[in-house]
Amino acid sequence: MNITDLKFDYADLADQKLEELDLPGRPAILYEPVKYTLSLGGKRIRFFFTVTSSGMCGASMEEAIPAALAIELLHNFTLLHDDVMDSADTRRGNPSVYRKWGTSAAILSGDILFVKAIEQLHYYGSNERFSKEQYNKLQSVFYECAERVCEGQAFDLEFEGDITVTVDDYIEMVEGKTAALISGAFRLGGTVADADPETLEELALIGNELGIAFQIQDDLLDVVGDPEKFGKQRGGDIIEGKITYLTAQTLERADASQKKMLTSIISGKEAGAAEIESVIALYKELDIIRDTRQAVESYYSDALRRLQHFPSSEYRNDIEILIEKLTNREF
Amino acid sequence: MNITDLKFDYADLADQKLEELDLPGRPAILYEPVKYTLSLGGKRIRFFFTVTSSGMCGASMEEAIPAALAIELLHNFTLLHDDVMDSADTRRGNPSVYRKWGTSAAILSGDILFVKAIEQLHYYGSNERFSKEQYNKLQSVFYECAERVCEGQAFDLEFEGDITVTVDDYIEMVEGKTAALISGAFRLGGTVADADPETLEELALIGNELGIAFQIQDDLLDVVGDPEKFGKQRGGDIIEGKITYLTAQTLERADASQKKMLTSIISGKEAGAAEIESVIALYKELDIIRDTRQAVESYYSDALRRLQHFPSSEYRNDIEILIEKLTNREF
Repeated sequence: MNITDLKFDYADLADQKLEELDLPGRPAILYEPVKYTLSLGGKRIRFFFTVTSSGMCGASMEEAIPAALAIELLHNFTLLHDDVMDSADTRRGNPSVYRKWGTSAAILSGDILFVKAIEQLHYYGSNERFSKEQYNKLQSVFYECAERVCEGQAFDLEFEGDITVTVDDYIEMVEGKTAALISGAFRLGGTVADADPETLEELALIGNELGIAFQIQDDLLDVVGDPEKFGKQRGGDIIEGKITYLTAQTLERADASQKKMLTSIISGKEAGAAEIESVIALYKELDIIRDTRQAVESYYSDALRRLQHFPSSEYRNDIEILIEKLTNREF
Repeated sequence: MNITDLKFDYADLADQKLEELDLPGRPAILYEPVKYTLSLGGKRIRFFFTVTSSGMCGASMEEAIPAALAIELLHNFTLLHDDVMDSADTRRGNPSVYRKWGTSAAILSGDILFVKAIEQLHYYGSNERFSKEQYNKLQSVFYECAERVCEGQAFDLEFEGDITVTVDDYIEMVEGKTAALISGAFRLGGTVADADPETLEELALIGNELGIAFQIQDDLLDVVGDPEKFGKQRGGDIIEGKITYLTAQTLERADASQKKMLTSIISGKEAGAAEIESVIALYKELDIIRDTRQAVESYYSDALRRLQHFPSSEYRNDIEILIEKLTNREF
């Protein structure tokens, strides 16, 4: 991520703090995969949104770092388990833990990342500047995030190859699978700053909109992105029979024969290059790609508009810059 | 478990409280396996030790129920993931979640059980009778347990087929894999009662000894138990190449040719009935079964002896009764 115009290299700070985590050397089969995963980098946007929203609400960025690490570690926990569930060979352009160490190590190292995530909140439990109520609220936000991520993942699993799924169902899934952690990042940041309930609600909505935008964009990049930049095979979602924003839209819009074609491809899980091309052609024919782009822009603009309710600050400015960057991302 | 001589039917209380958990209906692929798992029953000894140790330290049993549910749910989380890692077909005489719903559902429903476990501690966070310090300590005990369980499981995985493992290594693994949760149950109970650090340390040691005894006994039952009562195939650990108390002892005691025989069987993972019989014959020849029985008794007696440092009470009495029952368990 190009950070020249951000006030600060947040991703670098996240990497550095993750590297400083006090992880033991053994059992190696547990901690090697954890260290490997954390060393693969990533956009660290959940870390970013936690510390900046805390700053935007008047707390110091420093105070939000443990919460930001908690949510970033929780995200990495989900990736480790996802890769097992998707039998994914690669992650961030490198072999996945699942591929490198196997199912058991990927499950266990995911589990320990979950523990390490929630452990970060201990900082607020043992620090006098935070009341018991505030500590408890941070815990609750964290649980709720984790719960909604699991639910979203489960919907994703349930929806595979299910052609009765609507756009509303899709949004419900994404609000869990992707938006819960981004929304959670904003809420954790606001809670560290002891923001009032209305402000926290507003932060939650911003995160939710950004998360939906981010996921729809991922769905779109699967089809129109440059596989080299995006780091995934073109049409991967089609091959896996995933319900995406594009398939959900298509299912609502297609005529009987188009629907039959799409259905047979996404239920079959054996799509080759030719099938992927016919699905993409169908998307174009039904204006799905254009409308998906519009949906992404619309969710991002809603979030940006909502952000204007917060007083102007360097942190708000950095959030705006990052949203602009995300809007134009190619990976 | 025959409960006629216990003051109270704790397992029944645990079952009832687990049934009362407010679990949503959807996504079904997530919550069906969770409800199924919790309905399969179990000894609920972690629940038992939490509420009785709380009572023994002067708190009401009622106050410890959320902590007891937390540790029982954490235990069930480990079982769901274990069954995936061991490709286990059955659990408590029924099809495992892994077998019934598949890998992804078993991973995700394990994950959500973890969240539901830690969520139970919210009771202490929102209840004025518990200080922030106490709440934070409950959280810490819980993380530490979870961490040590993952580490123990990872050692178990690492040790499979490894013939250089010593009895000390084995004990270190078991202190994580099995004893961490039992020790954690005692510590959570004591923490609910706001016991002093020395008392908590004593409770932790009792739980650790009981956990080790319990696991060594499991290892023994795998070989000498009645498969009908124990609910597992005789010699299952030998087939899977697990390092048990018996194999670890044998590896230290066997001569070169005996060691070679054992090694080829536990490294091969293809042991049939004849191989299992030769391993059992070797155990008998080297007095391993006798000494393993003694080790079980010795760990249980150490725990009972340590328990005498606590003032006599109905709760202490119930713990003693349960330990007697466990000493003689056949499943």
